[in-house]
Amino acid sequence: MAVIVQKYGGTSVGSIERIFQVAKRVAKTAAAGNQVAVVVSAMGDTTDELLALAKQIMPNPPERELAMLLSTGEQVSIALVAMALTALGLEAVSFTGPQAGVKTKGSPLEAKIAAFEAERVKAALKAGKIAVVAGFQGSSPDGEIHTLGRGGSDTTAVALAAALKAQICEIYTDVDGVYTVDPRLVDHASKLAEITYDEMLEMASLGAKVLHPRAVECAKEHGVILHVRSSFHDNAGTLVKEVAEMEKEAAVRGIACDVDQVKIALRGVPDRPGVAARIFTAIGEAGINVDLIVQSLRRNGENDILFTIREEDFDKAIAILTPLTKEIGAKELLHQHNVAKISVIGAGMIHQAGVAAKMFAALGKAGINIEIISTSEIKISCLIAADRIQDAARAIHDYFQL
Amino acid sequence: MAVIVQKYGGTSVGSIERIFQVAKRVAKTAAAGNQVAVVVSAMGDTTDELLALAKQIMPNPPERELAMLLSTGEQVSIALVAMALTALGLEAVSFTGPQAGVKTKGSPLEAKIAAFEAERVKAALKAGKIAVVAGFQGSSPDGEIHTLGRGGSDTTAVALAAALKAQICEIYTDVDGVYTVDPRLVDHASKLAEITYDEMLEMASLGAKVLHPRAVECAKEHGVILHVRSSFHDNAGTLVKEVAEMEKEAAVRGIACDVDQVKIALRGVPDRPGVAARIFTAIGEAGINVDLIVQSLRRNGENDILFTIREEDFDKAIAILTPLTKEIGAKELLHQHNVAKISVIGAGMIHQAGVAAKMFAALGKAGINIEIISTSEIKISCLIAADRIQDAARAIHDYFQL
Repeated sequence: MAVIVQKYGGTSVGSIERIFQVAKRVAKTAAAGNQVAVVVSAMGDTTDELLALAKQIMPNPPERELAMLLSTGEQVSIALVAMALTALGLEAVSFTGPQAGVKTKGSPLEAKIAAFEAERVKAALKAGKIAVVAGFQGSSPDGEIHTLGRGGSDTTAVALAAALKAQICEIYTDVDGVYTVDPRLVDHASKLAEITYDEMLEMASLGAKVLHPRAVECAKEHGVILHVRSSFHDNAGTLVKEVAEMEKEAAVRGIACDVDQVKIALRGVPDRPGVAARIFTAIGEAGINVDLIVQSLRRNGENDILFTIREEDFDKAIAILTPLTKEIGAKELLHQHNVAKISVIGAGMIHQAGVAAKMFAALGKAGINIEIISTSEIKISCLIAADRIQDAARAIHDYFQL
Repeated sequence: MAVIVQKYGGTSVGSIERIFQVAKRVAKTAAAGNQVAVVVSAMGDTTDELLALAKQIMPNPPERELAMLLSTGEQVSIALVAMALTALGLEAVSFTGPQAGVKTKGSPLEAKIAAFEAERVKAALKAGKIAVVAGFQGSSPDGEIHTLGRGGSDTTAVALAAALKAQICEIYTDVDGVYTVDPRLVDHASKLAEITYDEMLEMASLGAKVLHPRAVECAKEHGVILHVRSSFHDNAGTLVKEVAEMEKEAAVRGIACDVDQVKIALRGVPDRPGVAARIFTAIGEAGINVDLIVQSLRRNGENDILFTIREEDFDKAIAILTPLTKEIGAKELLHQHNVAKISVIGAGMIHQAGVAAKMFAALGKAGINIEIISTSEIKISCLIAADRIQDAARAIHDYFQL
């Protein structure tokens, strides 16, 4: 008898009708002879609504109390899903994160899963029941309710699948699976049947937002096979698993786009040890995520340091960098709005030369100028003008015949 | 340093504005040099809304899952109240029922408090923090979240006051205190400064719905002094405490009215042992509360058994009693709608003769017919026509010069 973990996001449990659809799918999986554990998020916009309520009281509520508040969202979902399963004639039992045995470490709102002591869940499955577990939450060493931050429910599902040694962890979402490129940009984008953890990590962090990188990392660490699929129909989605089990022919698996970028340039930075660290420590401490970083050695012992940040962090970044530019003795602080990043990703890239050259050729043929280039073992990213992103995605997609 | 427990109901925490009013009152109590533990209910109609959501799924959801669902209501309140206290510059920490140490026994939705292991709350108070505890909930011996049923939040507050050996347990509500009679019926009703536990029990169960009888019983058992008062102003309300501490002059403390009654009569019931038990067991098992019961011995070895039930239980009661009337060999099943019960209550009644006679005289003078009379040591109840209830309340109130 196989153990299957199914995770349903907020949209999938957004209404009583949707909850019944989830229950029917779970029932079908159980009827096929599987033990099923279900992980659910808060209904629809519940988390945002609770957050808005808290912000009416104070802009920065105590983290512990915010975690106490937000965790109620999933608790409502698990109770309702368990009821819907009962209404369909199944035996179901819900568990909050603390009850399910999710042990956390770290801060109340950004806790990490330290351990998943899934004895109660295992006992429920063994007794022939469906276990319905609250995503996004767990209990700290001193018995506090902590939440897991972004991607927390996906991570709960993967950690539970690891603890139960589940055959598969199905992530139900509002998209069909992982695509070679965002279908809104390129209409003949095709769905990937399989993708490796590393490729998925690159895809996820580059803007293909179907699955949180944390969950992918956790799945990779514990060898949990993921199946990203739609909660609206029965078609197969995309399997995320180790490269060893997959064909490696395709050098490029997909394309990721990220349009919400600003390019920052520090010109004439003295080439001294520790200068770069100083810049990026200041930026990081302000909670600003830096994406591409490129440093090019210039003449006269000076560097240009270029990097990209999200548009929403722009004001904060400039406020930090303006005095810092003087302090470190850099010549000039420049920025450029309306830039976008396009990346090609593929584990097969390591074995095939010339992928970068092909990408540059595709962009060049389409008359698109490249601002910055950055490469890793399995991805190549180019910064281009934001208004050319769709042309770029089509050009590359067609050039690589994805 | 005195320990004070304050309990705020759903209306008192019904909006962010109200929550801030609660926080200000708590802050004031703390500033006066007290350690304060706060017990709160779910915001406004939250519990009813959650219940409605569950009923959309199935008419009778599993009790365990319903308790899981409903308990989120208070969890939202405690987090928001703790945030509001923090916003006012106080240190506050919220506790769910399970975290606060409320140990329950019994069924998931009608659990009783078996013990209050208040170590975490005590530690928080000792550390100079305000403890904000979720009413209405606790954890069962096997770690399930159970709810306490009607009056649960009042009972949580009283049990916490007992566990903390609090100086007083303040019950904040939307009325000023306990009145001699419902002010909607008699405009010159007066507020009682003090009332005994037993009087309060009679008042509460007879329709003066400011405080649940369970909470009063718990307070009596543990000698917790209650202060029932308004959350809208600072005026003193009504103290509920032992008779030993109070003057005993007033024979009649107050008047309670209950209009929602149906009289049921079984005529010609054979006078055999166990017949009455059979009737009231059948009624009780159907969850119908019986109020007044009067049995008068008649000739020929037959009784008449009269009792009152609530209008909402009428159809159910008749469905049970119709076949039962035949089975037990009674002659006739009769009923009368639109009856009301009026009662005078007072611990002093025990020491003063003639209170019943005065009540009957007051009703007689007002031309009000008495259907049934029932008496206990501290109350006298009369069943009258529902449309005369206001006249009756005024007549008795004036006769006793309350």
